[in-house]
Amino acid sequence: MLAPETLLITINRVRSRVAIIVNLDEERDRSRRPSLEPLNALVGADLVEVNRLILQHMQSPVALIPQLAGHIVASGGKRLRPMLTLASASLCGYRGTRHCALAACVEFIHTATLLHDDVVDDSALRRGRATANSVWGNKASVLVGDYLFSRAFQIMVMDGSLRVLDILSNASAVMAEGEVLQLVTSNDAETSEQTYLDVIRRKTAALFAAACRVGPVIAERPRVEEEALDSYGLNLGIAFQLVDDVLDYAAREIELGKTVGDDFRDGKITLPVVLAFRRGDREEREFWRRTLESQDRRDGDLDHAVGLMHKHGALRDTVARAAHYGAVARDALGIFPEGPAKSALLEIVDFCIERAY
Amino acid sequence: MLAPETLLITINRVRSRVAIIVNLDEERDRSRRPSLEPLNALVGADLVEVNRLILQHMQSPVALIPQLAGHIVASGGKRLRPMLTLASASLCGYRGTRHCALAACVEFIHTATLLHDDVVDDSALRRGRATANSVWGNKASVLVGDYLFSRAFQIMVMDGSLRVLDILSNASAVMAEGEVLQLVTSNDAETSEQTYLDVIRRKTAALFAAACRVGPVIAERPRVEEEALDSYGLNLGIAFQLVDDVLDYAAREIELGKTVGDDFRDGKITLPVVLAFRRGDREEREFWRRTLESQDRRDGDLDHAVGLMHKHGALRDTVARAAHYGAVARDALGIFPEGPAKSALLEIVDFCIERAY
Repeated sequence: MLAPETLLITINRVRSRVAIIVNLDEERDRSRRPSLEPLNALVGADLVEVNRLILQHMQSPVALIPQLAGHIVASGGKRLRPMLTLASASLCGYRGTRHCALAACVEFIHTATLLHDDVVDDSALRRGRATANSVWGNKASVLVGDYLFSRAFQIMVMDGSLRVLDILSNASAVMAEGEVLQLVTSNDAETSEQTYLDVIRRKTAALFAAACRVGPVIAERPRVEEEALDSYGLNLGIAFQLVDDVLDYAAREIELGKTVGDDFRDGKITLPVVLAFRRGDREEREFWRRTLESQDRRDGDLDHAVGLMHKHGALRDTVARAAHYGAVARDALGIFPEGPAKSALLEIVDFCIERAY
Repeated sequence: MLAPETLLITINRVRSRVAIIVNLDEERDRSRRPSLEPLNALVGADLVEVNRLILQHMQSPVALIPQLAGHIVASGGKRLRPMLTLASASLCGYRGTRHCALAACVEFIHTATLLHDDVVDDSALRRGRATANSVWGNKASVLVGDYLFSRAFQIMVMDGSLRVLDILSNASAVMAEGEVLQLVTSNDAETSEQTYLDVIRRKTAALFAAACRVGPVIAERPRVEEEALDSYGLNLGIAFQLVDDVLDYAAREIELGKTVGDDFRDGKITLPVVLAFRRGDREEREFWRRTLESQDRRDGDLDHAVGLMHKHGALRDTVARAAHYGAVARDALGIFPEGPAKSALLEIVDFCIERAY
């Protein structure tokens, strides 16, 4: 019998030879592309329970609440944040049932901020569907967001861990700070890369970090594991947001259910804009000022914006920055033993970055 | 030496005689009018500490947050809710320092809902001053509201009591439900008295109840005292809101820094409207439908609305309903021993209702 590594080499050799004939290479590459499959395999059963809890806890005698909340909760999000809680718990060998309720809290906090974000951005579409504010109005979205946020804290109180409450209330405050900071900088094309990173560290990455930290806390693992998973989540969250910013200018709409140009139309300053502005000449900076600061956008402006980004490598380099944070996230998991949970968490990093290609 | 009651009678006799000459009667009556003075005397020193904590905890590296929060926090509110927490703690013989931080939480939750309310109502003025949303925009108000709400939970977590977290997270969820319910019924002149009471029980009274309940919880008093103070707060909150609704049609603006007609201009259905609509004839109901449902308001409509309310005794009877809830609130305190804390709490009830006269 062959040793495993010999077997692998043999298979690869065979594959290479076959590939010449039927071009299996492409198929093999696709099958190797990082995906959320290992994560789904790891936590899929728990996620069913999380979805059940989400539906249960968004009920209210006030009918508009489950209607509106159901619209956004069911709108095809990946449930990435609650899955991080479930996978972190799994990585830490957690064997109880608390992780599902706490993952639902994480999703409620995320959903509440989405509802408020869409109001703040006047967004009409999210993931290709009408936003709650465009269907029920801004007022209902603000108030149902408040409801879901309160619900999240109620569920945490039922769980009974002050440590978890501390982690998620801190994350919520930091997220709100990040949103305000983004609002303040939202029409300033001269925003620095550092300021922008500060925004996304708060508004996006803080909840990723908190979602991951809950796992080791409920598994009662040592502080060093908490910090490792916090760092993994924080850096993954930064990478995720940077790639999201790239996709907003470069996504293939059908694949991602994402509308290209939303950020541009909202006048949002993201890293691709920051880089293109700083690398641009006087005339180009005038273009960014007109379209994003003065909000004077005309036909063809979005294409021109994308053209400038390509000219200066702003999208490519934003992905490179994301890859940097992804690498830090991967290394943060170094202290954990190999296994399906660690593999799944590592693959999320690659998945988040590969989305850009 | 005279017995105290004899002395009192003698003084009163003297006063009566003097009154004939210099009309001190009016002065005496005014000095007897219920006020917040006994409450201020009881908790004034603690309230200084609460205000210090409020200022401390609304700080943030994101400068807009303390600016906007400071605007509403400093805008001359009575701090009635945190004072209820302080007075309840005093009534229960609490001797520690936790009541001040928790009173600050109560005020933060209240302030967050005010910020979101003003956005939902498109209000331009609150207590005679420009609202935060009219100065900084709706977006900033939504996000700073979220920040203050998160802060409240952070402070509660620092305090460390799951019981308190339970009480205030439940109140927050119920308040959000009440706000949504009010939004749903906001332009329906046929709203029933029962539905309206359900709205204010949630949106206003739930936080009064929670603010009062915190006192016996931190003083570790028996459940019966918790329930008594919860009932006191709930019924006081209902009475307070009903009188507020009356004042919105009948206040003397200078005295109250309150703009008459805000609710009418917002198309809000409050109990005076509910009663006037139900007691009105066909033509009058058409008037209410035009002004509040169709939002078609013309010069003179507000005066006409007030006239209809007087014609049907709608304001008078709303005050009578408030007096009913006030009486329930007073009786809820029956189990507590007499003393300055109980007197102050009883006088708040009278103060809240007497505001209407």
